[in-house]
Amino acid sequence: MKIGIYPGTFDPVTNGHLDIILRANSIVDKLIVAVLFNPDKLSNTLFDVAERVELLKETTKDMEHVEVDFFSGLLVDYMMKNNVSVIIRGLRTITDFEYEMQMAHINKNLANNIETLFMVTSTQYGFLNSSSVRQLGFFGGDVSDMVPGIVEEKIREKYKTSHQ
Amino acid sequence: MKIGIYPGTFDPVTNGHLDIILRANSIVDKLIVAVLFNPDKLSNTLFDVAERVELLKETTKDMEHVEVDFFSGLLVDYMMKNNVSVIIRGLRTITDFEYEMQMAHINKNLANNIETLFMVTSTQYGFLNSSSVRQLGFFGGDVSDMVPGIVEEKIREKYKTSHQ
Amino acid sequence: MKIGIYPGTFDPVTNGHLDIILRANSIVDKLIVAVLFNPDKLSNTLFDVAERVELLKETTKDMEHVEVDFFSGLLVDYMMKNNVSVIIRGLRTITDFEYEMQMAHINKNLANNIETLFMVTSTQYGFLNSSSVRQLGFFGGDVSDMVPGIVEEKIREKYKTSHQ
Amino acid sequence: MKIGIYPGTFDPVTNGHLDIILRANSIVDKLIVAVLFNPDKLSNTLFDVAERVELLKETTKDMEHVEVDFFSGLLVDYMMKNNVSVIIRGLRTITDFEYEMQMAHINKNLANNIETLFMVTSTQYGFLNSSSVRQLGFFGGDVSDMVPGIVEEKIREKYKTSHQ
Amino acid sequence: MKIGIYPGTFDPVTNGHLDIILRANSIVDKLIVAVLFNPDKLSNTLFDVAERVELLKETTKDMEHVEVDFFSGLLVDYMMKNNVSVIIRGLRTITDFEYEMQMAHINKNLANNIETLFMVTSTQYGFLNSSSVRQLGFFGGDVSDMVPGIVEEKIREKYKTSHQ
Amino acid sequence: MKIGIYPGTFDPVTNGHLDIILRANSIVDKLIVAVLFNPDKLSNTLFDVAERVELLKETTKDMEHVEVDFFSGLLVDYMMKNNVSVIIRGLRTITDFEYEMQMAHINKNLANNIETLFMVTSTQYGFLNSSSVRQLGFFGGDVSDMVPGIVEEKIREKYKTSHQ
Repeated sequence: MKIGIYPGTFDPVTNGHLDIILRANSIVDKLIVAVLFNPDKLSNTLFDVAERVELLKETTKDMEHVEVDFFSGLLVDYMMKNNVSVIIRGLRTITDFEYEMQMAHINKNLANNIETLFMVTSTQYGFLNSSSVRQLGFFGGDVSDMVPGIVEEKIREKYKTSHQ
Repeated sequence: MKIGIYPGTFDPVTNGHLDIILRANSIVDKLIVAVLFNPDKLSNTLFDVAERVELLKETTKDMEHVEVDFFSGLLVDYMMKNNVSVIIRGLRTITDFEYEMQMAHINKNLANNIETLFMVTSTQYGFLNSSSVRQLGFFGGDVSDMVPGIVEEKIREKYKTSHQ
Repeated sequence: MKIGIYPGTFDPVTNGHLDIILRANSIVDKLIVAVLFNPDKLSNTLFDVAERVELLKETTKDMEHVEVDFFSGLLVDYMMKNNVSVIIRGLRTITDFEYEMQMAHINKNLANNIETLFMVTSTQYGFLNSSSVRQLGFFGGDVSDMVPGIVEEKIREKYKTSHQ
Repeated sequence: MKIGIYPGTFDPVTNGHLDIILRANSIVDKLIVAVLFNPDKLSNTLFDVAERVELLKETTKDMEHVEVDFFSGLLVDYMMKNNVSVIIRGLRTITDFEYEMQMAHINKNLANNIETLFMVTSTQYGFLNSSSVRQLGFFGGDVSDMVPGIVEEKIREKYKTSHQ
Repeated sequence: MKIGIYPGTFDPVTNGHLDIILRANSIVDKLIVAVLFNPDKLSNTLFDVAERVELLKETTKDMEHVEVDFFSGLLVDYMMKNNVSVIIRGLRTITDFEYEMQMAHINKNLANNIETLFMVTSTQYGFLNSSSVRQLGFFGGDVSDMVPGIVEEKIREKYKTSHQ
Repeated sequence: MKIGIYPGTFDPVTNGHLDIILRANSIVDKLIVAVLFNPDKLSNTLFDVAERVELLKETTKDMEHVEVDFFSGLLVDYMMKNNVSVIIRGLRTITDFEYEMQMAHINKNLANNIETLFMVTSTQYGFLNSSSVRQLGFFGGDVSDMVPGIVEEKIREKYKTSHQ
């Protein structure tokens, strides 16, 4: 059985992420969506790791063979412990591409039996990223095309609190 | 069963191609390496389609679940006829990347159930392409690091003939 | 009055071109869509210049202040003769971008009062180009999402003839 | 009447910005140069928003139909309130280009009647940015080719104070 | 003594080439400007190899330690025969860069003691290339900012002949 | 005598840096490897400037004509004081390339007699950078292919201390 992992910050999950999760899920037998967090550093994410995991679980609950987890430390260590052999990453831009190539080479160097597979984000989500979603949310912009309804709601709550 | 296809011109197959074939073969249950040819146009390849297929067969003969074939026309038509759902492509450069993203979007548009997966070429083959191999071969340069022994030999034969 | 020009080969016009024409038309007071042709060279376009102009006229006939014309020679010469001061170009990819920057600098160097304005192609047309449309048409692929109905029809006619 | 906006941080305005302002001003009927600031965050700009506005006013005072303003929040909100339909941005590099394409798509998504027009920075200013100017200024490097005289003077004053 | 080589097609030499030659000449003890030609193929250059060499000799005649030569075949073969250890190349664009990196790796692979050094073309020549010069020349455009006077003259002669 | 400088942060020196130092050393008569530090800012490097200099000295001690130094302020000021005319920089990625072109133009603008020469990092080190080395070191990943033994040891010591 081929197990894949889709690692990321997911702060928060967007429609672009969900597009990749859905399509990657058809490639591997089981897909782990893995939220990266770093317990040693002060978190400057909008959502904490528990919230990010929760939103992913909620928005992927109807997809079979998709699991949500979190990890810290080296991705390859997590993969070896969990018998995962394939990393899935979405590509949108050249800047993405160069960073991702570098990471793929580093991971290959650390664990030769691991492969990184890249999928191109669907055209309608090509311009989307979590950082823009957060910024729009902060200024009360409309993000309903960019994230699922439940995420939109949580963003509104977050910033209502922070503006008070 | 997940069947993948690795399409290309393979004029001729290089060590970079073989690196992708070997690694892609670990992702899918069966891999078809498919030589593109166009019967309607004057071929300006160094090796004709039969020779290219032959060299691929020879150099992949020890890999299980790898088949070599050729096709003309639209890749998605070939894939639908042969029940193939996954396209494998290697990425080396930004120029590659932009062309490949475009092709992936076009193929997705033609057949929504098809996915294109990109793998990054291993660092030692990142600068390699068939066109450089042919050019070096033409001028008698050393290509022994770039292609398998049998390909090197065939290149030498080709150019011996053409220089006579 | 500000007159803009949108120059190109348009072999044939696509939905991506029409998206730029529509949006550029809201920027300038009058927009000339100008088909480039070169009488000195053997044409290797699918449609000849008269056909390309005709398809553009047909597909832009409901847009006010849009004119279709053709030109050969230097774009800046055409512009100076016709009192045009603004070039409009669509940008999709990095490869586009580098070529277009170069052309913009050359045109600025030839005629300092001329400005080139770039618009980004809408996301759903970002992967589209005339060359892919022609290639799909040649192999009988579905181009109905990529070009207007009348262009689709003409492509079919062209290739029916060429396959006979 | 077509009103354009040229938004930016302008910390401080450079000769490259002034080149774009002058050329953009010939495209639209009125141009608003709009300094972005964020009252909610600790400012880490060299010049505060009032100084940046002042330097822009001073250096554009001889250009007709150019207004200087500032804004916080979403650019599209400012534009809708002020009846502005066209965003002007300068392009120098690929990194610029990818970020700017993303912003153009996001703004188009927020307000469909808004267009972003890109102009390429003139060759002699292509390597110039405010951050390099500040860094050179800090170390006492010569920035007289990069910014207007009055800006050079203000930079010198700033760093004289900060070095004391 | 460090001998450098600046290889190229030089069809024809431009002010951008001369900028690199002048600056490269200050790095090495002797600089060979080497015109590439391929006797086996039908030449589709505007100027034949003798003319290209002649124009380079004429335009570099006042530079000390600069020699003009031509070669066919592999650059590294020429270099080894002539005791040259350093290749000089100018970089303008990303597309340049990817191709040049590939060539540098191939040459390093063929001859490990050879180094390729890249210089960035001066900003005012960044948009310039021989192909644009030829195209402008063909249509009678002004190339006086782009090439030395003697080259401009030869271009005019060429096209006068070809238009007759 | 031609003196070159290879400036950088070197936090810490990697095998990729050493590859460039070795090869650059064959181009110039003397090479200064210069560690950049900024006494005015809080350092957020892993190794302080003395440690970085020490590791460079240790790992280059067998190379003739290589000196290690440090500097703050403008590179061109250091160069003019030390009679250095050539800057050496390694190129790996497009992102590198754009930043480096910009710096080369700025330095040329500050001191016209200075040249920047770029070398492409050898393929096996193309994915390597100090930041990845530090991150791997932090999580106890294997960096033995990426840095000399003495650097690996110092990284281990650093993080042992920081984890206590």
